[in-house]
Amino acid sequence: MSITNRQIHLVSRPQGEPRTDNFALVETPVAPLAEGEVLVRNHYLSLDPYMRGRMNDSKSYAQPQPLNEVMIGGTVGEVVESRNEHFKAGDQVVGMGGWQEYQRVNASQRGVLQKVDTTHIPLSAYLGAVGMPGVTAWYGLTQILNPKAGETVVVSSASGAVGGAVGQLAKARGARVVGIAGGPAKCEAVVQELGFDACIDYKAHPDLRSLSKALKEACPDGIDGYFENVGGVILDAVMLRANAFSRIAFCGMIAGYNGEPIPMANPSLILVNRMKLEGFIVSEHMELWPQALKELGTMVATGQFKYRETVAQGLENAPEAFMGLLKGKNFGKQLVKLV
Amino acid sequence: MSITNRQIHLVSRPQGEPRTDNFALVETPVAPLAEGEVLVRNHYLSLDPYMRGRMNDSKSYAQPQPLNEVMIGGTVGEVVESRNEHFKAGDQVVGMGGWQEYQRVNASQRGVLQKVDTTHIPLSAYLGAVGMPGVTAWYGLTQILNPKAGETVVVSSASGAVGGAVGQLAKARGARVVGIAGGPAKCEAVVQELGFDACIDYKAHPDLRSLSKALKEACPDGIDGYFENVGGVILDAVMLRANAFSRIAFCGMIAGYNGEPIPMANPSLILVNRMKLEGFIVSEHMELWPQALKELGTMVATGQFKYRETVAQGLENAPEAFMGLLKGKNFGKQLVKLV
Repeated sequence: MSITNRQIHLVSRPQGEPRTDNFALVETPVAPLAEGEVLVRNHYLSLDPYMRGRMNDSKSYAQPQPLNEVMIGGTVGEVVESRNEHFKAGDQVVGMGGWQEYQRVNASQRGVLQKVDTTHIPLSAYLGAVGMPGVTAWYGLTQILNPKAGETVVVSSASGAVGGAVGQLAKARGARVVGIAGGPAKCEAVVQELGFDACIDYKAHPDLRSLSKALKEACPDGIDGYFENVGGVILDAVMLRANAFSRIAFCGMIAGYNGEPIPMANPSLILVNRMKLEGFIVSEHMELWPQALKELGTMVATGQFKYRETVAQGLENAPEAFMGLLKGKNFGKQLVKLV
Repeated sequence: MSITNRQIHLVSRPQGEPRTDNFALVETPVAPLAEGEVLVRNHYLSLDPYMRGRMNDSKSYAQPQPLNEVMIGGTVGEVVESRNEHFKAGDQVVGMGGWQEYQRVNASQRGVLQKVDTTHIPLSAYLGAVGMPGVTAWYGLTQILNPKAGETVVVSSASGAVGGAVGQLAKARGARVVGIAGGPAKCEAVVQELGFDACIDYKAHPDLRSLSKALKEACPDGIDGYFENVGGVILDAVMLRANAFSRIAFCGMIAGYNGEPIPMANPSLILVNRMKLEGFIVSEHMELWPQALKELGTMVATGQFKYRETVAQGLENAPEAFMGLLKGKNFGKQLVKLV
């Protein structure tokens, strides 16, 4: 069987916003499998904001994405050939398959490839609600914000895969949940579909004063927990409304991904309000994934958990879809369908 | 017995740095004791940075200091008259006696006045090493920074009452301890007397680049815990050297006490380094004071714990001593001797 694989490589590091010429579509033949290896046909590719950080050649929590190699990324797909006793053709799996149509991988190492059950949960959900974004939401909410019933939780990027999950998990714990999203359509859906108590359109409140006023109206009892996905002026505005002993979980700071650091205007509020701010990377807490996935999977399978997907068609459209993601063009989980 | 009490009142709110004309010396007669009351002759008055915050009429964790009333402040002294069964003349006590020579107080309420034992610990130490500053250091170090042996802890205001205690408590736990203080004399004493591993003179490193370089040299393995007393450029410099999973305890941000908020330059480091930043007010954790005071008292009584005091003479000199404290003119605990 001679298979041609198509891959997207990073060929130059973006300065500021990524452009299509930072990427290249490359065709490579798939070599025959060695003992222990598995060949997976990737069905969906996950696009996530963290990928922008990896494109920089700078100190961070992870190694930079190497140039002229396939872009990293989470995938779900189906095993088409196996020389590994734990996998057989037809198995549905989730892994880090990268921006490519086929993944040839040594599946002997634990955790490289996980079989999943699609009886009650769609395959694509394992990249979103029941995957890394869902666990990210779960970790930040339960391990850092830990809201009590009646407290107020604010979530930025509320219509994104992580933000939407944060809000629904917080609602399930009895919190008042206020989202922040871009545009009236997203805000309406966050309230109507995802069940948030309110949602603020940050595009309608472009400055600190206006945003702070909107937060005051949406959060009459102040803010007890904030799930941070964006940074910048939104972080400053939330801190101005933070209650004593409030918590901020730092998950992403997308506002600064493309350029210079954006300062925090008033860090003395950390002291004045006895706040706790904590950054986290969900892949460093693998011991909690089973617990998180159990809760998320149950909520998805029973329909308690709502999520949307924005799906780009075809590997060749992955770079453009990724650029759109960074600008908030998606609603919910951004995927690329590869078959 | 007719006693005239002398008090320092706050008569106007300082704009920027406090000035002597923000204060007034007022003489008032001491009224006869009512049932349950105790009259204390204050021996020492504690001056602390938090008092500057109280002078503002703004939202904070505590009520503003009222105008034309005696300034709040911790005191140690001796009971001279008692109509309370739990206290008798001659008892040595610690309390919140304020900027005045005598304190008439209803001592029935628990915690208003505490008897202390000066057999092995000097009376003044109950305002410093074995008082609020010591417990502040203990709380931030043990409950937030929680350093493991071999980790590096950095402390600003290292020659102050809190900073000096933080460093010695961290050393006792096997950490490498680096202080930051103003001027070569203070830095030398922090290393020679208090036993820190190194001390950086921030006056010799006035900008971020220079300070960051000095921190790199003093902390070759990076920074795992930072006890924050000052804010501003020192906070920014420490964050640039912070390790993964490092912690910052926010105790004071004296750099911003007199003016506009000072931004934090690069909050995305909270995420990149998965840091935890936490503000605290030691008076909100009274349940831990006995544990803290036991450790601190033992260390002081056995001579394991070193501290210095800067003592101003006479109540009338309290305002000037306080202004000096805000500028870092003191070494160790700033006291005013009232007898």
